[in-house]
Amino acid sequence: MSQHTRIHVIPWTMLCCLLVLLDWSNEGSCSQTSEATGECLTCHEALHPGIVQGWRKSHHARVSPSEAQKKPDLERRMSGTAVPDTLQNTAVGCFECHGMRADAHKDSFEHNGYTIHIVVSPDDCATCHEVERRQYRDNTMSFAHTNLVKNGLYQDLIASINSTMSFQGQSLKSVPPNEKTNADSCLFCHGTSISITGSAARETDFGEMTFPILSGWPNQGVGRINPDGSAGSCTSCHPRHDFSIAAARKPAACAECHIGPDVPAYKVFEASKHGAIYTSQESTWTFDAVPWTVGKDFSAPTCAACHASLLVNSAGEVMVERSHAFTDRIPWRILGLIYAHPHAAAPDNTNIRNSAGIPLPTELSGEPVAQFVITSEEQTKRKKQMQASCRGCHSSQWIENHWSGFENTIAETNAAVRTGTQIMAGIWEQGLVQGLPQKQSIFDDAVERTWTSLWLFYANTVRFASAMAGGGDYGVFANGRYFMSGAIMDLKDWMDGRMKVEEKPEQKK
Amino acid sequence: MSQHTRIHVIPWTMLCCLLVLLDWSNEGSCSQTSEATGECLTCHEALHPGIVQGWRKSHHARVSPSEAQKKPDLERRMSGTAVPDTLQNTAVGCFECHGMRADAHKDSFEHNGYTIHIVVSPDDCATCHEVERRQYRDNTMSFAHTNLVKNGLYQDLIASINSTMSFQGQSLKSVPPNEKTNADSCLFCHGTSISITGSAARETDFGEMTFPILSGWPNQGVGRINPDGSAGSCTSCHPRHDFSIAAARKPAACAECHIGPDVPAYKVFEASKHGAIYTSQESTWTFDAVPWTVGKDFSAPTCAACHASLLVNSAGEVMVERSHAFTDRIPWRILGLIYAHPHAAAPDNTNIRNSAGIPLPTELSGEPVAQFVITSEEQTKRKKQMQASCRGCHSSQWIENHWSGFENTIAETNAAVRTGTQIMAGIWEQGLVQGLPQKQSIFDDAVERTWTSLWLFYANTVRFASAMAGGGDYGVFANGRYFMSGAIMDLKDWMDGRMKVEEKPEQKK
Amino acid sequence: MSQHTRIHVIPWTMLCCLLVLLDWSNEGSCSQTSEATGECLTCHEALHPGIVQGWRKSHHARVSPSEAQKKPDLERRMSGTAVPDTLQNTAVGCFECHGMRADAHKDSFEHNGYTIHIVVSPDDCATCHEVERRQYRDNTMSFAHTNLVKNGLYQDLIASINSTMSFQGQSLKSVPPNEKTNADSCLFCHGTSISITGSAARETDFGEMTFPILSGWPNQGVGRINPDGSAGSCTSCHPRHDFSIAAARKPAACAECHIGPDVPAYKVFEASKHGAIYTSQESTWTFDAVPWTVGKDFSAPTCAACHASLLVNSAGEVMVERSHAFTDRIPWRILGLIYAHPHAAAPDNTNIRNSAGIPLPTELSGEPVAQFVITSEEQTKRKKQMQASCRGCHSSQWIENHWSGFENTIAETNAAVRTGTQIMAGIWEQGLVQGLPQKQSIFDDAVERTWTSLWLFYANTVRFASAMAGGGDYGVFANGRYFMSGAIMDLKDWMDGRMKVEEKPEQKK
Repeated sequence: MSQHTRIHVIPWTMLCCLLVLLDWSNEGSCSQTSEATGECLTCHEALHPGIVQGWRKSHHARVSPSEAQKKPDLERRMSGTAVPDTLQNTAVGCFECHGMRADAHKDSFEHNGYTIHIVVSPDDCATCHEVERRQYRDNTMSFAHTNLVKNGLYQDLIASINSTMSFQGQSLKSVPPNEKTNADSCLFCHGTSISITGSAARETDFGEMTFPILSGWPNQGVGRINPDGSAGSCTSCHPRHDFSIAAARKPAACAECHIGPDVPAYKVFEASKHGAIYTSQESTWTFDAVPWTVGKDFSAPTCAACHASLLVNSAGEVMVERSHAFTDRIPWRILGLIYAHPHAAAPDNTNIRNSAGIPLPTELSGEPVAQFVITSEEQTKRKKQMQASCRGCHSSQWIENHWSGFENTIAETNAAVRTGTQIMAGIWEQGLVQGLPQKQSIFDDAVERTWTSLWLFYANTVRFASAMAGGGDYGVFANGRYFMSGAIMDLKDWMDGRMKVEEKPEQKK
Repeated sequence: MSQHTRIHVIPWTMLCCLLVLLDWSNEGSCSQTSEATGECLTCHEALHPGIVQGWRKSHHARVSPSEAQKKPDLERRMSGTAVPDTLQNTAVGCFECHGMRADAHKDSFEHNGYTIHIVVSPDDCATCHEVERRQYRDNTMSFAHTNLVKNGLYQDLIASINSTMSFQGQSLKSVPPNEKTNADSCLFCHGTSISITGSAARETDFGEMTFPILSGWPNQGVGRINPDGSAGSCTSCHPRHDFSIAAARKPAACAECHIGPDVPAYKVFEASKHGAIYTSQESTWTFDAVPWTVGKDFSAPTCAACHASLLVNSAGEVMVERSHAFTDRIPWRILGLIYAHPHAAAPDNTNIRNSAGIPLPTELSGEPVAQFVITSEEQTKRKKQMQASCRGCHSSQWIENHWSGFENTIAETNAAVRTGTQIMAGIWEQGLVQGLPQKQSIFDDAVERTWTSLWLFYANTVRFASAMAGGGDYGVFANGRYFMSGAIMDLKDWMDGRMKVEEKPEQKK
Repeated sequence: MSQHTRIHVIPWTMLCCLLVLLDWSNEGSCSQTSEATGECLTCHEALHPGIVQGWRKSHHARVSPSEAQKKPDLERRMSGTAVPDTLQNTAVGCFECHGMRADAHKDSFEHNGYTIHIVVSPDDCATCHEVERRQYRDNTMSFAHTNLVKNGLYQDLIASINSTMSFQGQSLKSVPPNEKTNADSCLFCHGTSISITGSAARETDFGEMTFPILSGWPNQGVGRINPDGSAGSCTSCHPRHDFSIAAARKPAACAECHIGPDVPAYKVFEASKHGAIYTSQESTWTFDAVPWTVGKDFSAPTCAACHASLLVNSAGEVMVERSHAFTDRIPWRILGLIYAHPHAAAPDNTNIRNSAGIPLPTELSGEPVAQFVITSEEQTKRKKQMQASCRGCHSSQWIENHWSGFENTIAETNAAVRTGTQIMAGIWEQGLVQGLPQKQSIFDDAVERTWTSLWLFYANTVRFASAMAGGGDYGVFANGRYFMSGAIMDLKDWMDGRMKVEEKPEQKK
């Protein structure tokens, strides 16, 4: 065994007095638990030890709102200024959240003498975290459900992906996807709409009990529509019952929804210099410090450092302010849409239409639709905000050159998508497959999928690699430029091949 | 340096008295080492420091069988009840395993006065771990070699993947793969069959010595056929000479074989909420506790927690029993075969045939062949066993809704595979490529590979994402539904394109 | 909270005396900082806390060259024998590196009374690390820029990937890629050529200052051409200002450039037994020990252990010498070129030509061009050097069988590439697309990309899986043999399809 060892192999029998002290730090203040929460714990401690122990380790279990408010401004973890007196001096336990705002919740029900609800919502959390909740609402993510399900173009894409297809008489027929399929796919990240469809009696260890029946549940998508009408889910990033700031600051928090080829942020991070430093050093970093001190607490940014966290330098001076409006530092929208473009001006995108009436903030040529996107002044403001986090380690020239490389990538990837779109338009015009001009689905043919992958996967991946790493394997061979140029070649090759055949009039169908 | 620091940076010169205590915990009982093992260590400690040090840190090096048996039932790490007296009071060292059951081993040889063998097998381990060995034998994994190499359909797939192809006279010819190629590919995970092909003298640091020559070695596949005739390899999951329970409980243990698009369990885990919690918190968890206490030792399940481990709640009550029959908690087989279906009834699948005589437990339409799969009662039993591990953190409704989403996914992915298979059947019937009706390989044409990827990669991936995460990027864009539907479009597109050409009689060959 | 806890949750107020001692170990010797460096820190400590704190934790900040030279040979971290007296007794701080060899640096400029440069180069580092610098220069990696940009074949590949394509009159036109695009893609890993294009005044917190303007910056590619004319970048693997040996020994260091399908070393490692052991145990290993003791410091090799590090056994005997010529242990070149072949004889490959005049060390049939590759004697020497690192854990037979499996894989993958290349040659000969015989790009058609992926992705991946793991999922389904054989089928399928159409004279264009 190495002389550089770890405390966790110390035989506890030999160090029990030390351990008593250690235990104190985590469990000391549980005396503040409310009577109601205490009653919850009587049964649920043994029933659901995973979440109860998670909660016991959390700040919620150990610090009451009144204590939390005494912290100096930069160290405060709660922003609520109107916490009801009844909540001020107890731990934030089961009942404090699941009993909050009972009247607002359609999923409220009677349970052992208490009225509680299943789905704790951002509006519940807002009681103590009102600034974060407001910021989150001003943020595209809270509209992730709505912006998806109310956009005809995306509905076409979803249908092409999720429908049940059958092969009848030499052609493919589709039946629209059922709710469970949509919940298990797109809405997993975007959020379901949770509704109460009835109530059911259920035999439990403690006799028969009645519970509301929820559809669209479980789900923790970022734009989830909750039974109280609010949108969002704080547990998306602060998982389960420890509601940990540390967990949200680690890149794994974002991986759940930002790992696939459509939005490979986690993979690009992993393969970036930042990611290499994180991976090799993170075990020595401090993830739960508020504020988060560059250099002292961590040496390379995680997703949160660039996109959300309050960062200070070693002198305690603020480098960048906390924000739960993740778009505050994002001037460009680089993913999910056909072209990269200045970010949408409002979080609710349901009214966006380009000049062709398509629900997109750009024309098919890539030109942004000015009224729906932020101004270049706003872009500059957001860019500066983002770059403030770079300054902890990098010089102005480094940052500017990096950024100009990124904006070059936006221009080049948009050019590639434009070229692919022109070929696709040619294929539609020739009637080789049915699409936009024929008012048919633009996602349900193999060649249309080649075009879709061009922008949804490859152009996006190149942009992420450029934005987050300044290039690298993900910019070239791991779904990057090799594939982006290859998709253009594939479109051209398919068109050429089919034209050669279709050209002969006797073969046309 | 942060005030939240770690012991491993404490200068040891300053804390040597503490370290002496720490060292004791790991190396204190090495005095129990047998004379034979002591002799092994004389040379091998310097020759192979990696494995010897691994062993020194292991339970095997520190706890004798007689000590291990004194533990209370729930804490016991060994299940053997008939350990020979000669082994009871020594550490489990080199000779105890490599000298075990010498007569049964065809790879036994004389080495410095001892008869030892190279390949330690599950039947050797059974001396102390008899329950685990028996469970493992009742388990599909122990038949991973046999079920693969004795299945004609899989042999066709392997040949199409591993054969040496050449291009002669405008057509592709194949020479069957050699043994090394098969060992380096499919049999790496499924296990080789190890045979002794002779013996060879070898010059060593200690003079000339003679060793048996093994073919199919090295290999640690889960269904390896060992020189003593047994099947399996405990080191697959408990790697090298620390035979650690902690290693087997971490998801990396499973990644070696469960990471590719055919069985993306590790990738899906990594991108799941469970994985996010694991990744961000696991450094604070306890992986070597027996029993494994939900909440106290860990906060989110790893592969082992759901599939194998003995779990207890904070009151020490058993939530789910340990099993090394990994199928005990698995009602559905979701991977590797054309359709998902109720799990095969027996671990040995070599006699399975559908009504068309194909070695599959389903018809080509997806219908399970009742006699070869478990009953719905057995499915229910296994489902309940699996769900017992969910209960540590989730409510009944959560679990049931999750499960019904998963079973919806099984139905939908099977429907997608059926549609793709109907197109493929059409392609074969039209003779566009040669396949099932022509009694030719069904895996050796480009379009057949499109069909294969549909079920072997995409349908599987969707199912894993649904089973383990309830959806997410892997369910849609990372080899998920986007690709599953896309493969159907590709099949249709290829068929249409080739039909247009073939249709003209003058072009037919 | 578990009794197996960690020091980082100890309330510091309770253990401050211990912490004072801990802090001492990291910051104690900062008094050695030179006056110049002290002046740098006055401003930059607050401006760039990330890198300054990184440096403060580094050996550079704590150990002067004269102290470092006093270490016993095996423990020495610096090899310089001619360190100037002026540097001997100060910490290696900002000015010691950024002020080094001012006259040699075209990026030198006046900054607050000091002449400093931005880009610290391997020739600067050579002052204290001369052996490592010399080894690195003898190494293909230091020619990564030059070997790429001076090779016509690669330039064709880069152009096909990075050019701006447009669709005009039914055909694709290309404009060569701009510098930023190349820097953001291939040159990110291979290294840019940094040039000084002028100087600019910039408003700073401390008034207006003038800085040189660099193009090709930032970049840390391994073959970067620096403003002092040297090639390479030590920070590629020893990132940022802690210049940590630990970071370079962790596999994440290599992931930045060795993760994509063209060179999937990191992914294969992750899915190997070595990777599984690393992932589950590395938190208990010691990564900054010199020498690095097998078994004691680590239990499974990382990239560095096999390719670079000085390894000793538990008796302190050298198992393999340190080398920064990463090719010293590599007999075969398995990536990046059409065929695997004995490694190139010299690091500078710019003069390599095969008999057809193509800048490749093999013929198109795969035969190596003897004059440009190492001899079989040199291959044997390198193989033995590599195998020395295997011996820490594995027997001779294990190692030899593993190796013979690997060389079988080289032969089999080369055969597959040869078959694919023959089909591609047939396609070119038939004029189905324009390529080698027509002296046109061999990378700009969809079917040429299928051929490129065959060798650049799939054959490579199979070889990496075989070399590093002995097989596994990456050898078969994760870009492995399934895809390698599939690409051959795709080539054949495309050829057949197009031949059927082209065959009819009236359709030929």
